[in-house]
Amino acid sequence: MNFASDNVAGAAPEILAALLAANEGAAAPYGADAISRRLEARFAELFEREVAAFPVATGTAANALALATVTPPYGAVLCHAEAHIHTDECGAPEFFTGGAKLLTLPGEHGKLSAQAVERALAVTPFGSQHAIQPAALSISQATEAGTVYTPAEIAAITEVAHRYGLLVHMDGSRLANALVALGVSPAQATWRSGIDVLSFGATKNGALGAEAVIFFDPARAGDLIYRRKRGGHLFSKQRFLSAQLEAYLHEDLWLRNARHANEQATRLAAGLRDVEGITLRHAVDANILFVEFPEELIQRLIAAGASFHRIGGADSTLVRLVTAFTTNAGDVDRFVDVARALSRV
Amino acid sequence: MNFASDNVAGAAPEILAALLAANEGAAAPYGADAISRRLEARFAELFEREVAAFPVATGTAANALALATVTPPYGAVLCHAEAHIHTDECGAPEFFTGGAKLLTLPGEHGKLSAQAVERALAVTPFGSQHAIQPAALSISQATEAGTVYTPAEIAAITEVAHRYGLLVHMDGSRLANALVALGVSPAQATWRSGIDVLSFGATKNGALGAEAVIFFDPARAGDLIYRRKRGGHLFSKQRFLSAQLEAYLHEDLWLRNARHANEQATRLAAGLRDVEGITLRHAVDANILFVEFPEELIQRLIAAGASFHRIGGADSTLVRLVTAFTTNAGDVDRFVDVARALSRV
Amino acid sequence: MNFASDNVAGAAPEILAALLAANEGAAAPYGADAISRRLEARFAELFEREVAAFPVATGTAANALALATVTPPYGAVLCHAEAHIHTDECGAPEFFTGGAKLLTLPGEHGKLSAQAVERALAVTPFGSQHAIQPAALSISQATEAGTVYTPAEIAAITEVAHRYGLLVHMDGSRLANALVALGVSPAQATWRSGIDVLSFGATKNGALGAEAVIFFDPARAGDLIYRRKRGGHLFSKQRFLSAQLEAYLHEDLWLRNARHANEQATRLAAGLRDVEGITLRHAVDANILFVEFPEELIQRLIAAGASFHRIGGADSTLVRLVTAFTTNAGDVDRFVDVARALSRV
Amino acid sequence: MNFASDNVAGAAPEILAALLAANEGAAAPYGADAISRRLEARFAELFEREVAAFPVATGTAANALALATVTPPYGAVLCHAEAHIHTDECGAPEFFTGGAKLLTLPGEHGKLSAQAVERALAVTPFGSQHAIQPAALSISQATEAGTVYTPAEIAAITEVAHRYGLLVHMDGSRLANALVALGVSPAQATWRSGIDVLSFGATKNGALGAEAVIFFDPARAGDLIYRRKRGGHLFSKQRFLSAQLEAYLHEDLWLRNARHANEQATRLAAGLRDVEGITLRHAVDANILFVEFPEELIQRLIAAGASFHRIGGADSTLVRLVTAFTTNAGDVDRFVDVARALSRV
Repeated sequence: MNFASDNVAGAAPEILAALLAANEGAAAPYGADAISRRLEARFAELFEREVAAFPVATGTAANALALATVTPPYGAVLCHAEAHIHTDECGAPEFFTGGAKLLTLPGEHGKLSAQAVERALAVTPFGSQHAIQPAALSISQATEAGTVYTPAEIAAITEVAHRYGLLVHMDGSRLANALVALGVSPAQATWRSGIDVLSFGATKNGALGAEAVIFFDPARAGDLIYRRKRGGHLFSKQRFLSAQLEAYLHEDLWLRNARHANEQATRLAAGLRDVEGITLRHAVDANILFVEFPEELIQRLIAAGASFHRIGGADSTLVRLVTAFTTNAGDVDRFVDVARALSRV
Repeated sequence: MNFASDNVAGAAPEILAALLAANEGAAAPYGADAISRRLEARFAELFEREVAAFPVATGTAANALALATVTPPYGAVLCHAEAHIHTDECGAPEFFTGGAKLLTLPGEHGKLSAQAVERALAVTPFGSQHAIQPAALSISQATEAGTVYTPAEIAAITEVAHRYGLLVHMDGSRLANALVALGVSPAQATWRSGIDVLSFGATKNGALGAEAVIFFDPARAGDLIYRRKRGGHLFSKQRFLSAQLEAYLHEDLWLRNARHANEQATRLAAGLRDVEGITLRHAVDANILFVEFPEELIQRLIAAGASFHRIGGADSTLVRLVTAFTTNAGDVDRFVDVARALSRV
Repeated sequence: MNFASDNVAGAAPEILAALLAANEGAAAPYGADAISRRLEARFAELFEREVAAFPVATGTAANALALATVTPPYGAVLCHAEAHIHTDECGAPEFFTGGAKLLTLPGEHGKLSAQAVERALAVTPFGSQHAIQPAALSISQATEAGTVYTPAEIAAITEVAHRYGLLVHMDGSRLANALVALGVSPAQATWRSGIDVLSFGATKNGALGAEAVIFFDPARAGDLIYRRKRGGHLFSKQRFLSAQLEAYLHEDLWLRNARHANEQATRLAAGLRDVEGITLRHAVDANILFVEFPEELIQRLIAAGASFHRIGGADSTLVRLVTAFTTNAGDVDRFVDVARALSRV
Repeated sequence: MNFASDNVAGAAPEILAALLAANEGAAAPYGADAISRRLEARFAELFEREVAAFPVATGTAANALALATVTPPYGAVLCHAEAHIHTDECGAPEFFTGGAKLLTLPGEHGKLSAQAVERALAVTPFGSQHAIQPAALSISQATEAGTVYTPAEIAAITEVAHRYGLLVHMDGSRLANALVALGVSPAQATWRSGIDVLSFGATKNGALGAEAVIFFDPARAGDLIYRRKRGGHLFSKQRFLSAQLEAYLHEDLWLRNARHANEQATRLAAGLRDVEGITLRHAVDANILFVEFPEELIQRLIAAGASFHRIGGADSTLVRLVTAFTTNAGDVDRFVDVARALSRV
């Protein structure tokens, strides 16, 4: 009953098999290998347009490189106050940009609204030498709250951002979970809704450690190759990154894995929703639940062997539960049983 | 006949097998897993002392994090003019340190001498607010020229550096090749000779992508964990890095692989050494040869299917040949045959 | 009727005279001159303890150097959401620290409260490698809202900050105005209330361009001299900075100037306070007023030749009025007359 | 007999008078004042073309801002091994660029040659993601050795640099001395010879602390205003910087001052040249001499009250002598007399 994070899961067998297959023979290093070349074509097909794609090993690297490529040192990135880039990356965007600022906005259920973005940008002193200059906006899809932006919501936000000259980044560490929830195409969920650069995640959903920075306008990718190397993120044996991503996309593995994770989250939510004393904080769109539990239940769950995180400190009774492609329904049901048993007492 | 680099090789089967084994079940992320904990103990055993070890995925990351942890932004790192950190990392040390300077020194056969270091430090304006302050010295073992420092040479250099207050870093991306060449223990080749912090390499010698920063005085590791995360180098599924390193050390796989690579380099050097018109530039201590070839031979070798790099521009007839754990003796012999055939004409 | 800022004023005649006097003969550069040496002793006397004092030319330089000396790149600085360091320095603290984060807190009337600081620090994940680590807290005295912290308020804030391991910085660009308002000693307003490092301002209150970073524990000044030089803030002819500061302190010029500015602000506030349609937003402790004016009055004042800034955009009717050591009472009275005349209509 | 540096001199009376005059009345801050606006026009007239000019207070600030505006973090600046930007600015260019590298070249008498630049650039791996990318070249005029580039020499260097896509910066902290030596116009010595951006110095030659970054193509100035503010180099009372520069240019004060300094250097060189045991290291083109003295003479000169620096350590008998606009001929003659007296013994 490990619901601590989707990163406690290992790797998908299909992806491990791809690593073994990729190991045959010598290969040109640093992305000049055959698999890496195929991968860029595969991404172009997936997104229905030419793209520039840069595999890296961690989501933080993808986010920081993507943002640094479009944000000068005196720039700012607008994001949600609970965005992973602000709260969980130990300042990686600040480091890679050379000291840009993250300007955080509040927003219900982990989501920015076009209105909040408009309000913030309307009073921004663009062109004033005294003020950091907003250059990018970043949204997480799915959000850190487990909710999902609709393409219309994204389009509304990107319209505002573009009007003020900002580019828009999507932290897609859980993009597959969002796509499954929305039932729309990768293109629709991203560039057709105005996204300029994407951190395409795979690690949480089946890879060992593989993500990609994807620029929908390759001309914008500019100097990313230098920043990647200088950041220590260029792999000599890049075939092993590319092979993970290729297998991840092969026969929709990524969507199948995400669908499984989402279904388990839905099953968990359904099991907990009508239990007395339990409150779900947000809609369960993807594979994350935020749940208020009575402290006694938290203790029972821990005693029963469940793993999860309290959010907001050691005394908090707000709990985050995350499902993964490996979560089995039996664990979900056992967890629900413990909760229901206490409530019946 | 691919002698372009040791990074054109894939991964060792033992290491791939370890990845499969590591994939069982859920595991705590970010280094809190069982394999990662075992690995630190394994490194302590290997180096015969307590160490602080931080797995990362690339050699550039290891070098940059190691140097940034011991060098302030207004600091300097002394290194050889041909050091990888200076010529091939696109400024990663400068980036991670926040703008420190690499001060390069010349040296025969890719090696710094204690004398050159002493000369440089003797005229350094320590304490002057006008001048960058040397804080570290870095040597590569084996060197980029394919030569190897003896423990006595290292001890002489580190004595000078320490006397002036510098810490000493070893770029050990080919440490295994050096150890095999020297026949000394890991402890002897590093901290017993005065090394303070080591980039322990595995990628070139059998891993998919795995290195470790090793501090021989754990108290010096200081704030590396924050710099690692902020650099995007903390892996959520760190078990997959640690498993590579564990397998790399298991039953001396690393030394066996390196011994094979060194032997092929020796075989190649022996085959080429007495051929007319061919000059070996340096001693072949490890798995790298620098060879002056007649241009006509270069063309023949390329035509015969050999891969290698010219050093110093497209017209250069100085060639670098690198062997790996995967190099087979047949390829070596074929390469030598082409060279000898031309010389006999 | 120029109330746009206290930086529209020129320099005090006493300070210009000191520049002329300082110009006699050759002098050792970079702070080794006699005036600079006297100045450090003068600051020690002023603050009733040994200090380390570093003259620079701008307030932004003082703030950024002070903060960078005590905050690592992966650190954070807590400050008020309206702090000058956050809103008006184009990211100077982020630049000088190498990418630290400013974490902003709300607070009434431009002031942080000990409670708000406690709340923020209580949920901060100190020691977590995923999170920026708070290392400093900065308050402005007087605040950007024109209010002043009492020594007791400062002591309460610094007690919390110190308890969590943070050092406390005071942006004292208007310290003289605050001291005059409070009637306490410089020592009482700073280190005796727990301040660790001070940006001591003089430019807004009579200097041409001179400030000082003051560490109350000289051992904390650490590497500031290198950061100052590398920031381009070490003056070769430092005597001209030191002479400004020496004259500024001589015979309490700084307090006399500030008293004059505060008195004009008080006079302005008194004149406006009971006028219908006019609202003062904050207490007028120092030399700044925030006033809500009817738009018609704003137009009249501009027509009458008054200068001031609207706060929060071109349509805002919230106006900031700043008095200086050069403000004359006649201008104040004329301004009030225009306001009263409209209200009588 | 203070020949330690031209920065031991105070300020020119004309410049102090200009400060007093600039102090009249209120003035818009941050460069919006009348003097600052006049200054930009004055620079355009001086250089016979539209320019973008940015006053700052120190030469290090001017150099670092100029270089950071044209060099990305992954860029490199080519310069002479003895360039002030490399040896005496504690890494300011590295800091302001975000970690670019200074690549140093040797050169006789403090000067780069077009040949050396060509050799370096011809083997530079432009476009390789592994290597720092050269973006700028910097020369000092006059050089740190006291020599001067002819316009033809500059044109030869800039032709090479431009051909490889680099912009060329001139560190003109002693530009006036060079112009006087050459007898050419400011335009000829700079942009007509291919210079793209200039650090225009005034501090060493009569200002209290005033320099300017001058872009000959204003479109290249790009984001300098943000970098200046974020570097703490935007002055609120900028009129006091601009007034110094305006007075510096008024009625050729800068050239008159420089001519005086150069003449004293020439007088000193003439007096020392034929003395036995004394060797002048370089041509004395401007206001700096490098002289080998017998140790006994050094002791005599110090005993007689002379100030100067030994170059290359405390035991070095290579001495640097610098004259300034304030140097009087009597001091020069006395110094020569001491030298001659010893030689006659």
